[in-house]
Amino acid sequence: MRDFSTGHEWLSINTATVRRQWDLPQIIDECAKRNIRAISPWRDQVAAAGIDNVRRQLKAHEIGLSGYCRGGFFPAADAAGRQAALDDNRRAIDEAKTLDAACLVLVVGALPGALEGKAAYKDIARARTEVRDGIAASLEYAHEVGMPLAIEPLHPMQAADRACINTLEHALDVCDELDPKRSGALGVALDIYHVWWDPKLEQQIARAGKERLLAYHVCDWLTPTRDLLSDRGMMGDGVVELRKVRGWVEAAGYAGFSEVEIFSELDWWKRPGEEVLDTCVERHRSVV
Amino acid sequence: MRDFSTGHEWLSINTATVRRQWDLPQIIDECAKRNIRAISPWRDQVAAAGIDNVRRQLKAHEIGLSGYCRGGFFPAADAAGRQAALDDNRRAIDEAKTLDAACLVLVVGALPGALEGKAAYKDIARARTEVRDGIAASLEYAHEVGMPLAIEPLHPMQAADRACINTLEHALDVCDELDPKRSGALGVALDIYHVWWDPKLEQQIARAGKERLLAYHVCDWLTPTRDLLSDRGMMGDGVVELRKVRGWVEAAGYAGFSEVEIFSELDWWKRPGEEVLDTCVERHRSVV
Repeated sequence: MRDFSTGHEWLSINTATVRRQWDLPQIIDECAKRNIRAISPWRDQVAAAGIDNVRRQLKAHEIGLSGYCRGGFFPAADAAGRQAALDDNRRAIDEAKTLDAACLVLVVGALPGALEGKAAYKDIARARTEVRDGIAASLEYAHEVGMPLAIEPLHPMQAADRACINTLEHALDVCDELDPKRSGALGVALDIYHVWWDPKLEQQIARAGKERLLAYHVCDWLTPTRDLLSDRGMMGDGVVELRKVRGWVEAAGYAGFSEVEIFSELDWWKRPGEEVLDTCVERHRSVV
Repeated sequence: MRDFSTGHEWLSINTATVRRQWDLPQIIDECAKRNIRAISPWRDQVAAAGIDNVRRQLKAHEIGLSGYCRGGFFPAADAAGRQAALDDNRRAIDEAKTLDAACLVLVVGALPGALEGKAAYKDIARARTEVRDGIAASLEYAHEVGMPLAIEPLHPMQAADRACINTLEHALDVCDELDPKRSGALGVALDIYHVWWDPKLEQQIARAGKERLLAYHVCDWLTPTRDLLSDRGMMGDGVVELRKVRGWVEAAGYAGFSEVEIFSELDWWKRPGEEVLDTCVERHRSVV
């Protein structure tokens, strides 16, 4: 297991972590100041800054992308909606390629309309079929251009509205079905926030192996958790066994970045960005 | 599959559903008025009314108990705490027996102290071992007096503070370990709110079978869900496929009550109790 205590060369910052404080060019500058070698930006932030500007800025600072957020949201109420989702995923793959991301993270989607409070249908098995078909369709193009797709299993509390793949086991079942040869084109983004509770986590991480583990995200689970989306904790402030899980991930062959992704309406999004990044660096060394 | 549309002889009311409106004697009277044949009361409500009074009142109205809430919370920070939990579970078993409940529902507990915001330790595997040991110890006495124990898998969003058994599969693994003969002494309380998202739900319900399915609870999952504990929806107001899941449960052999359990700080606890019960009866017939 790698020793993170003496440096932070394997730290990546998911740019949602400081999205309320800074725009993307500022985030990149602040990461560069701290010798942070990787980020994972969101499409809206890239679009606001201009993708070519972002590419140049990253290159100048020698900052890489541990992932690109995000593709997915495949299920839709009708065929036109499903086609629009596929088209949008193709654009996301192109952007990820332009920025030379390690993978495109997929938040796969769930019951169409549920995020807006009115589900078009309730059949979660149907949504799962649409997700599988959407990934299969996107995988062809992604494979052709060489952009790995990383399915992110989301916490079951987000099963209705954001992603109907909610366990690592389920994500790996989809990977095995669509990419039985473990080609590297399809895998998972494992976010400890979503999966820490799973009694089968260790077993399924071992099953995933190096070929499927495309990204690793950290934060912490707070008690109490006051919101289903944006009350994530800073590493060390909650109940997740970060070192233990990283041990499993590395034993399975993962040797990439540990990406900090914190949505925190009530705490970290309210603090100065400098404090947030400094704390990420410190906790990466001390508890991750 | 039973036809619920013409009557509500299989409706049970978990008394938490109207706990803010009425005390237990009032709840029982209001259920009797509506020809509701079963309830599932909580220990604090029974204690407040006096268990002998409750027993007499239930007998007079010919109302049974589809379950008794609740035992569990086995993990503790030290041996004294674990012994206190076992003693308390023994008392809960006695009370359930006095009231002739169909089962004692177990909310098994999780990281000790987490519910109060400060976990004594973070090792969820250790909590799971303490849970298994606690159930094993309680099972001896429960078996002796003839009170089935029903493990309730709670939603993974409650894994840190309320129950570290979070899937039906995990609950059944514990049942198989501690009661390999499927004696009827140990099974599950399946609450659709906690398990509806699980891609293995149908498969695991079939695995459970009649011997393990000791109780069946319904409500609904709202989008958005605004609180991790008490924003449950009335049946039909959310995204859960109630009829489909009841079909699986009945195909597995379950022929007992469908128990309504709604914690709803923001909606149903604010309405008149009469309206809540009338709505439970109506939705039981129309959507459950």
